[in-house]
Amino acid sequence: MKEEKIILGVDPGLHTTGYGVIDISSGRARLLEAGVVHSSSKTLSGRIKDIYDGIAEVVQTFHPDVLVLEQLYSHYKRPITAILMGHARGVICLAAEQAGISVVSYAATKIKKTMTGSGRAPKGQMQRAVQFELRLSQLPEPPDVADAIAIAFCHYAEARQTFKLNP
Amino acid sequence: MKEEKIILGVDPGLHTTGYGVIDISSGRARLLEAGVVHSSSKTLSGRIKDIYDGIAEVVQTFHPDVLVLEQLYSHYKRPITAILMGHARGVICLAAEQAGISVVSYAATKIKKTMTGSGRAPKGQMQRAVQFELRLSQLPEPPDVADAIAIAFCHYAEARQTFKLNP
Repeated sequence: MKEEKIILGVDPGLHTTGYGVIDISSGRARLLEAGVVHSSSKTLSGRIKDIYDGIAEVVQTFHPDVLVLEQLYSHYKRPITAILMGHARGVICLAAEQAGISVVSYAATKIKKTMTGSGRAPKGQMQRAVQFELRLSQLPEPPDVADAIAIAFCHYAEARQTFKLNP
Repeated sequence: MKEEKIILGVDPGLHTTGYGVIDISSGRARLLEAGVVHSSSKTLSGRIKDIYDGIAEVVQTFHPDVLVLEQLYSHYKRPITAILMGHARGVICLAAEQAGISVVSYAATKIKKTMTGSGRAPKGQMQRAVQFELRLSQLPEPPDVADAIAIAFCHYAEARQTFKLNP
């Protein structure tokens, strides 16, 4: 197992950016905090600053060892939306880099498969899988939060797998 | 004419980000400085921080009244490249917002048409038009720099036009 103890998963969006912070102790994953950064500014630049400020605050509060994102893919249905998500993703990467935290990413299909066994799991199934794996008393809401926790959990599962193969 | 005296045009890219700063005095545009921010870091997050640091430095040095970008469009040939450009564009918007500078954008075709009369002008023609309009002794190189100056000049031309119609 790598020496990453605190993992921050982020699911960027111009309206709602989900985040989930998990702590690894004795090889077990525990949810420390999860939530959303709401971007309510009227301008694009204002929204981007909302996201940056929100994630920078999470980084400063929890000092994660790694920040995990979903990988980009090449067949977005809405190109403009994807590029705007890229704006959000950019300032999230900046917040990590400024704090000296490495950024890793996993394919969406890999994250879904890790959580549910299927790379095409719908949102509801992902939420239930996150609730089960992190032993949460409630279903994580909204789905952006569940996705962010799943992204962080995927990194934990990957690192655990690497450890088992190369102890 | 609006009260914008210093206009910063930026042409974002993950490898090379062009910028051009123009000053408006007595209704005439004059080039104050132009150049590129090179992103040489090995990681995406490192490159993004290079761009952010570079543009933030230009903003702090010249205190522009407005930052001008090319508008997004919906038919990028390479989606991943466009989304990565979005990362760069995001941190540029952040640098502007943090400095209290408004961000405006113009369609690429409008910028080209303003400079050359044609919305489909090739790079070389854009470089020559920028050299002519700003009375530069040399052709602006690389094309990213010419594009950034053209973006700033387009805002000046637009504001001048608005003034003529609504004095």
